[in-house]
Amino acid sequence: MNVLGYAAHSAQDALAPYRFERREPRPDDVVLEILYCGVCHSDLHQVRNDWGGSTYPIVPGHEIIGRVLMVGPEVTRFREGDHAGVGCMVDSCRHCAPCEAGLEQYCHEGATFTYNAVDRHDHTPTFGGYSEKIVVPESFVLKVPDGVDLKGAAPLLCAGITTWSPLRHWKIGKESKVAVIGLGGLGHMALKLAKALGAEVTLFTRSENKREDGGRLGADTIVLSTDKRQMAAVKGCFELIIDTVPSVHDLNPYIPALSLDGTLVLVGYLGDLNPMLNTVPLIMGRKSVAGSVIGGIAETQELLDFCGRHAITSDIEVIRIQDINKAYERMLKSDVKYRFVIDMASLKA
Amino acid sequence: MNVLGYAAHSAQDALAPYRFERREPRPDDVVLEILYCGVCHSDLHQVRNDWGGSTYPIVPGHEIIGRVLMVGPEVTRFREGDHAGVGCMVDSCRHCAPCEAGLEQYCHEGATFTYNAVDRHDHTPTFGGYSEKIVVPESFVLKVPDGVDLKGAAPLLCAGITTWSPLRHWKIGKESKVAVIGLGGLGHMALKLAKALGAEVTLFTRSENKREDGGRLGADTIVLSTDKRQMAAVKGCFELIIDTVPSVHDLNPYIPALSLDGTLVLVGYLGDLNPMLNTVPLIMGRKSVAGSVIGGIAETQELLDFCGRHAITSDIEVIRIQDINKAYERMLKSDVKYRFVIDMASLKA
Ligand SMILES: [Zn+2]
Ligand SMILES: [Zn+2]
Ligand SMILES: [Zn+2]
Ligand SMILES: [Zn+2]
Repeated sequence: MNVLGYAAHSAQDALAPYRFERREPRPDDVVLEILYCGVCHSDLHQVRNDWGGSTYPIVPGHEIIGRVLMVGPEVTRFREGDHAGVGCMVDSCRHCAPCEAGLEQYCHEGATFTYNAVDRHDHTPTFGGYSEKIVVPESFVLKVPDGVDLKGAAPLLCAGITTWSPLRHWKIGKESKVAVIGLGGLGHMALKLAKALGAEVTLFTRSENKREDGGRLGADTIVLSTDKRQMAAVKGCFELIIDTVPSVHDLNPYIPALSLDGTLVLVGYLGDLNPMLNTVPLIMGRKSVAGSVIGGIAETQELLDFCGRHAITSDIEVIRIQDINKAYERMLKSDVKYRFVIDMASLKA
Repeated sequence: MNVLGYAAHSAQDALAPYRFERREPRPDDVVLEILYCGVCHSDLHQVRNDWGGSTYPIVPGHEIIGRVLMVGPEVTRFREGDHAGVGCMVDSCRHCAPCEAGLEQYCHEGATFTYNAVDRHDHTPTFGGYSEKIVVPESFVLKVPDGVDLKGAAPLLCAGITTWSPLRHWKIGKESKVAVIGLGGLGHMALKLAKALGAEVTLFTRSENKREDGGRLGADTIVLSTDKRQMAAVKGCFELIIDTVPSVHDLNPYIPALSLDGTLVLVGYLGDLNPMLNTVPLIMGRKSVAGSVIGGIAETQELLDFCGRHAITSDIEVIRIQDINKAYERMLKSDVKYRFVIDMASLKA
């Protein structure tokens, strides 16, 4: 299947139009015409090989909303014309304990990621959502509830699920006190979702000018993390802190804000904890530092359904695919409120 | 009440005989004649002011087994002649959420520690178990089950409860896979207790010569942490790793040995995680690094009762109080299997 997309050909290259072959659909596959694709920090990291392991050409994009063009004969849950979503994974082993538990992101054999990976069956490379069409097994395709704003729903597939999964795993609901560190693509979704789950929500931010947006997006309280008095005032407050900051930063000021048995969960930063994490407040309050990555397929469907019921979407800025390289530059400066979404119709322009 | 004990008068001084005044018993107090007192690493740290905050003179000791000499009129659970235990705490606020939950060690107002603290009511200093007698409110005195070896039970009050509490909090039982890092006072108790709870138990150690003892104490498997092949073989194995190492060490090699949702809990090391902890394996397996300190009073009673039923005591070497300074030197070299216990009768010698 010949498809037009945008690809990077090396870590140094800008993204540019690229024609490539996708694998032919198998009996359990759904073929989507891609309508919108969110722009995730991981796209940039992988394009620039920041984490190593990038195999070029890379067609990024894993926040995909599309329309079903075609379904294989074994597909039962989708029909031509349905709106559907694809997130960070397009397959997994499907039989290990995590897969059985609906935690495909922790598949023992490694999930098949939407791009920069290889298909488990024919070993062809996977290519992401900065393209016209995608071919995905039904089990990894999400239903988009009726009435949801399609372009605003795209970021739910990564930014949304990445914050939803820890909120659910750590059982956040009414009466919960949750804090979010950082107000970007992940952080703004964490605020909206925690608030809609009924929690009392605090935003930790370093800049006073996030106050208005923080409040609008769901934070009951804004705490300037640079202000020692404000930090002292939230000592022992939070059962869960979702840390969405993608760059290296000091966790130590946040640990005292956890309550007994509280958890700070990292969802944005891959690397060494620098400065070093001090164990004293962990030990003296049975606190945890944990990590979490995206979420499972069933959990992602749960999120989409929840967002359908609560009319939650991401705050987005729609761009044309031709502006993707500029969008990356702006994203690096956090100059986006709060997610770029590519209108894939622009690809035909 | 005039009492003879052993005290340090400064961070540089050796412990030496010391006569001091204890507070007079209040109506809810139990007065114990101290029979045995375990020697904990914390004793040494506090005597030498390693953590700061030491107020001299210090009479250390918080692994106390004694005989009831006298009870106040409000005491209902103890009678003269009973065997009883006192651990790291002798009081707490008793009304905050952790205290209400039986987690006095995390009291919001701070528990009153057995030594190097001040009584909450009359603000007299507290003095520990390296002494003839101690006065403790009934609520903080533990019952010692009949038939337990008294000297071997002393270390249950700190080394025992410090490992028991995380085993219980993280719900270890049959079918659980647990690992213990380090084979000292805490580690040897962790092996015995995890094994008696029915878990499959692994010991991580750096020295091959711990193999025999590790096995005898309850480890089904010994993993040399310096051997990369052995470490790779336990990838993804453990739901709980209890890290008993009291000195700075690298946690990074152990995180991959945790299973999905597994927790490495630090119980021995207070300080910075050096080298820096890397977040990637935490995030990619929803793993946690947590801390835990001693345990609550009800939990300590549960431990003593459990040890009574399972005939579990600490492996000890009994010393005279006159040999305490030599014992400290040996403890620093880990030259003890696995806990020194002072026979307090020696004080009269
Ligand atoms: Zn993403
Ligand atoms: Zn799997
Ligand atoms: Zn101790
Ligand atoms: Zn309390």
